Amino acid sequence: MQAAGAAPGTIRTGGRTARVRAAVLDAALRELAEHGYATLCVEHIAERSGVHKTTIYRRWQSKDAVLAEAIADLVETLFPIPVTDSIDADLRAFARALVDLLTSADPLVVGTIRALFSDAAADPRIAELKRDLYARRYEEARAMIHAAITQGQLPADTDVRELVGLVTAPVYYRLLVTEEPLNRAVADRAAATALTAVRAGACRRPTE
Amino acid sequence: MQAAGAAPGTIRTGGRTARVRAAVLDAALRELAEHGYATLCVEHIAERSGVHKTTIYRRWQSKDAVLAEAIADLVETLFPIPVTDSIDADLRAFARALVDLLTSADPLVVGTIRALFSDAAADPRIAELKRDLYARRYEEARAMIHAAITQGQLPADTDVRELVGLVTAPVYYRLLVTEEPLNRAVADRAAATALTAVRAGACRRPTE
Repeated sequence: MQAAGAAPGTIRTGGRTARVRAAVLDAALRELAEHGYATLCVEHIAERSGVHKTTIYRRWQSKDAVLAEAIADLVETLFPIPVTDSIDADLRAFARALVDLLTSADPLVVGTIRALFSDAAADPRIAELKRDLYARRYEEARAMIHAAITQGQLPADTDVRELVGLVTAPVYYRLLVTEEPLNRAVADRAAATALTAVRAGACRRPTE
Repeated sequence: MQAAGAAPGTIRTGGRTARVRAAVLDAALRELAEHGYATLCVEHIAERSGVHKTTIYRRWQSKDAVLAEAIADLVETLFPIPVTDSIDADLRAFARALVDLLTSADPLVVGTIRALFSDAAADPRIAELKRDLYARRYEEARAMIHAAITQGQLPADTDVRELVGLVTAPVYYRLLVTEEPLNRAVADRAAATALTAVRAGACRRPTE
């Protein structure tokens, strides 16, 4: 059942379509991580994945569509959003998962983060890709926040984006702005501060 | 009283020492903004400022020392930290000044910000420069926070760094992470959320 052209290590379970998808997304991320966004193209993804470029174009309309899906896949796999019966625990786990991702030693992750947050980010297509990625993440975080609201752990009119931003902003701030050390203590403090703020009345949805 | 070698527009009031300093700092920032950190050197700063490089080396030990002083000067001039009798007004003015600086159309400011927060930031000397810059800014913000504590507007054990980080992190988050629009409404919301959080018990200094 192994696709002839796919490199070892890129095979996931599933049918041929799933294998082709996995090989293409993996190749796109490796190209991005190793060579950056500027030289990324469907031809290189095709060569690296062993999937013909017409097959790639049939499924994705552009290199940006491949890349968007590859990055969303990576983030969802390495950084799942928890939903338990405790929003305190969930937000702490969420913040820690972000810190772990941003401090990962995996070259694929390091390269992807560099591509998203470095000079390449000046490219408007990277900016659009990031906006889509964050919109998708906010949608996923909605389940976590809404579970807490239903259980009376958060105010009913809590704004998902504001709260998620409040938890994650201090983490990115240390990484990208002050370049202070980033660790789980930072994550725990960010989650605790966000909870204090939201329970004291911050992060409410604007009234109509 | 005008220094013969200095270019028009770089002259400030003060004696010869002050004029030389102003010319050197101005030249360093313009070199950085136009050509980036990688090619910045004392020779170019000397040429551009009309100040001999031995004079520069006598006052500053390296290009990094010149640059650190130039950036600190720029930030302090364009982004003064207010101290009035209202911490609510001060934090809002502080957040707005940051937004104004980060969205400035002045090529000198744009170039400096790009140099501090782009690929050049991977250089450990830029990271050190940024750490020094932020340490200095935290020291300046201390006066603003302490005035509020003295007047009973903030808890006595408020942590200056935590509070300043809480106000500024959401602003940088939009600029560098989600690339959502940055405006004064974002600044006002960041200041209001930080005040709600600190008054509800966040941003306290760790107990000894």
